[in-house]
Amino acid sequence: MTEIDADVLVVGAGIAGLTAAWRLTQAGRSVVVLEANDRVGGRLYGFDVAERAVQLGGRWTGPGQDRVKGLAAELGIAVLANTVFSDLGKERGDGPSDKMRAAVRKLDALARTVPLESPWTAPDAEALDSQTLASWLAASFGPDLAAVLGDILSGFLPKAGDVSLLHAAFYLHSNGGLAGILGLDGPAHDSEMFEGGAHRLPQRLAERLGGRVRLESPVTALIQDDEGVRAESRAGDVRARHAIVALPPTLAGRLIYEPALPPARDYLTQRMPIRGKIVVALLYDSPFWREAGKRLVETATVMLWDEGGEQSPAALSGLVSIDASRRLWLLPEEERRAAILADVAAHLGPQTLAPTAYHEIYWAAQPWSRGCNSFMTTGAWTAWGDTLRAPVGRIHWACAEVSARFVGQMDGAVGAAEAAVEAICGGPSGP
Amino acid sequence: MTEIDADVLVVGAGIAGLTAAWRLTQAGRSVVVLEANDRVGGRLYGFDVAERAVQLGGRWTGPGQDRVKGLAAELGIAVLANTVFSDLGKERGDGPSDKMRAAVRKLDALARTVPLESPWTAPDAEALDSQTLASWLAASFGPDLAAVLGDILSGFLPKAGDVSLLHAAFYLHSNGGLAGILGLDGPAHDSEMFEGGAHRLPQRLAERLGGRVRLESPVTALIQDDEGVRAESRAGDVRARHAIVALPPTLAGRLIYEPALPPARDYLTQRMPIRGKIVVALLYDSPFWREAGKRLVETATVMLWDEGGEQSPAALSGLVSIDASRRLWLLPEEERRAAILADVAAHLGPQTLAPTAYHEIYWAAQPWSRGCNSFMTTGAWTAWGDTLRAPVGRIHWACAEVSARFVGQMDGAVGAAEAAVEAICGGPSGP
Repeated sequence: MTEIDADVLVVGAGIAGLTAAWRLTQAGRSVVVLEANDRVGGRLYGFDVAERAVQLGGRWTGPGQDRVKGLAAELGIAVLANTVFSDLGKERGDGPSDKMRAAVRKLDALARTVPLESPWTAPDAEALDSQTLASWLAASFGPDLAAVLGDILSGFLPKAGDVSLLHAAFYLHSNGGLAGILGLDGPAHDSEMFEGGAHRLPQRLAERLGGRVRLESPVTALIQDDEGVRAESRAGDVRARHAIVALPPTLAGRLIYEPALPPARDYLTQRMPIRGKIVVALLYDSPFWREAGKRLVETATVMLWDEGGEQSPAALSGLVSIDASRRLWLLPEEERRAAILADVAAHLGPQTLAPTAYHEIYWAAQPWSRGCNSFMTTGAWTAWGDTLRAPVGRIHWACAEVSARFVGQMDGAVGAAEAAVEAICGGPSGP
Repeated sequence: MTEIDADVLVVGAGIAGLTAAWRLTQAGRSVVVLEANDRVGGRLYGFDVAERAVQLGGRWTGPGQDRVKGLAAELGIAVLANTVFSDLGKERGDGPSDKMRAAVRKLDALARTVPLESPWTAPDAEALDSQTLASWLAASFGPDLAAVLGDILSGFLPKAGDVSLLHAAFYLHSNGGLAGILGLDGPAHDSEMFEGGAHRLPQRLAERLGGRVRLESPVTALIQDDEGVRAESRAGDVRARHAIVALPPTLAGRLIYEPALPPARDYLTQRMPIRGKIVVALLYDSPFWREAGKRLVETATVMLWDEGGEQSPAALSGLVSIDASRRLWLLPEEERRAAILADVAAHLGPQTLAPTAYHEIYWAAQPWSRGCNSFMTTGAWTAWGDTLRAPVGRIHWACAEVSARFVGQMDGAVGAAEAAVEAICGGPSGP
């Protein structure tokens, strides 16, 4: 292994991989980014339709998420207020009940007991990690309030029966608590967005990186020795002195490693699955639903909201529940579209049946993402969690899942990428 | 995709893959088996030292496991009584307390409510699947008895906090209940063994299959169309009309599939991790420990038993706990060996410090196995369980995890292999 193509090879051209590659380039290092898909951006995905930026992936940011906002500023992308949800909150009236507020405080108090850098050292780590969030919600609040809280939490965590209580507490702490996420005490964690859509960030990074990014190059194996790392990809091999794997842990675990990954790291990848839903965008000539004052509807299968703005076309975005996503995906595309539109029309009227365009993505079906939000199953943090961030020889891990702060967000991905670059270059990275 | 190398390609040369290949050969089909490792047998592993068959992997069988015993008979391998554990039980005296017996009955009553072919249709499936076995044990029996039961169950299930209660109940039902496993009402499920070791079964099958088995050929991708399936392996490609993937689900999920696996099947592979421990074999010129009447010891880190028999050398086998396995694996080999031997010597005397040979395997560290026992995390059976056995186009799944009866055992693996062959050939398989 003597022929070296680059100082660093990066696996995955999501926002973490591209940020790492860009920071390395700024530091004077040569870089090759190998991306399996035929586009960059990973879990950030969108496109323009006339004046409208249609977004089908991650999109929001908020207070304190300074790493991704710093990157956006550097790339000339403005951060805008996302007034849709806060306005909708006002429209909907009084906000959460006292009982709900008390439950949020109790959940957040538990969350604060979990150290962000080392959740496995929480005072009750073993006990928290050997039960599901569902068990704790039911025991703490009774079945009815537990169900309501489970629904709210399933916006960013999996179903409450699927996830370790320790992980849920860590996630909430990392993201400012449920109070912070919902904006009970100030702006919510989704109160800002990026001009032109969050997918502008990876697109601009890829423009700057140019030919360093190679699409349709799925890596199958990483072979390391004392000199460096060789990636075997279906589009050829690349050799480098270091590697950054910028994939969610479950996908990182699918590569062949030589020498084999340490057992504890391999087990971590088996215990941190990802989940994803169907996201739809419905475009119309005009936002006729505003006349009836309906800008957010929750049906049995979909949460639907007005994207706002006066641009043409007008847009409704929809997030299909995880169970309905699975069921609807088994239908032929035309039938699925008809079922979703019929559900929307029952709430917003028959005009919604004929959008000028219907776009959809099922994140679970994207072979190079398989979802948007990773989580830990029970027992994983306490047994294997200390391998989440630790490099393995010359291989570093960078993705939204790796960050202690704002885990699961773009900000976490940017922070993880910058930390990996710092570890390789031996000092803080940045412009 | 017109050039066809075989009727069926089999991925994995464990007992399931080899049984499938052999049954197909008996049915007149041409077969290629692609194995990643440099040996056959997968989770069955052993070798001869003088008169002694040393076994470091799966080994036992018992009442009702007629599929694997039928295969053994066909291969000329005798089934012997495994008297070690039953004799040891007698040595140890009274057996389980009434309180323990009542707990086993309660657990088995729950287990029987879970239909083996479709655990997700159990009366309380959602509730059972949204909590861990640990939560239920603690709520049902209090912390002390829950800890004892958790220890017993961790012989074949993961730590009680790691596993879905629904899965634990399914596993117990599939294996004759905890009463059946422990042999409370008759012979235990490990009351028999194979002459010369269980690894003789895959070895004999591989001898019969000859050049059809290709070692050191890790498959990286399976590409299927209307005509057949092509396997891309690091040792070349193979084309066939059908494929049987004979890997544990977590490893099957690591391949690239074209077209991509259906989301629900991919998610299943993310929710069914595997676990493995360090297994050791200590060989001595004579079984000196028998004089002191000690044939089974349980230390803080290892369960150690006399392999029995008058063959030379004498042998002690040891199963290291999952936590101690992880900890000890971080030590250099010499230190690990010294630590384990010191622990044994504290119970069986200083003579044990100098075995004539020390053999070990850490199943978690084997890149092509990563463990011996798979399990479902919470929420997996109810959401994705119906994809465990269903073929995907021309790709069939065969492994010990797929069987409804004797799941996780060699018997389950043989049954799953025969069912896959039947599905491909359109009728019962067998000699």
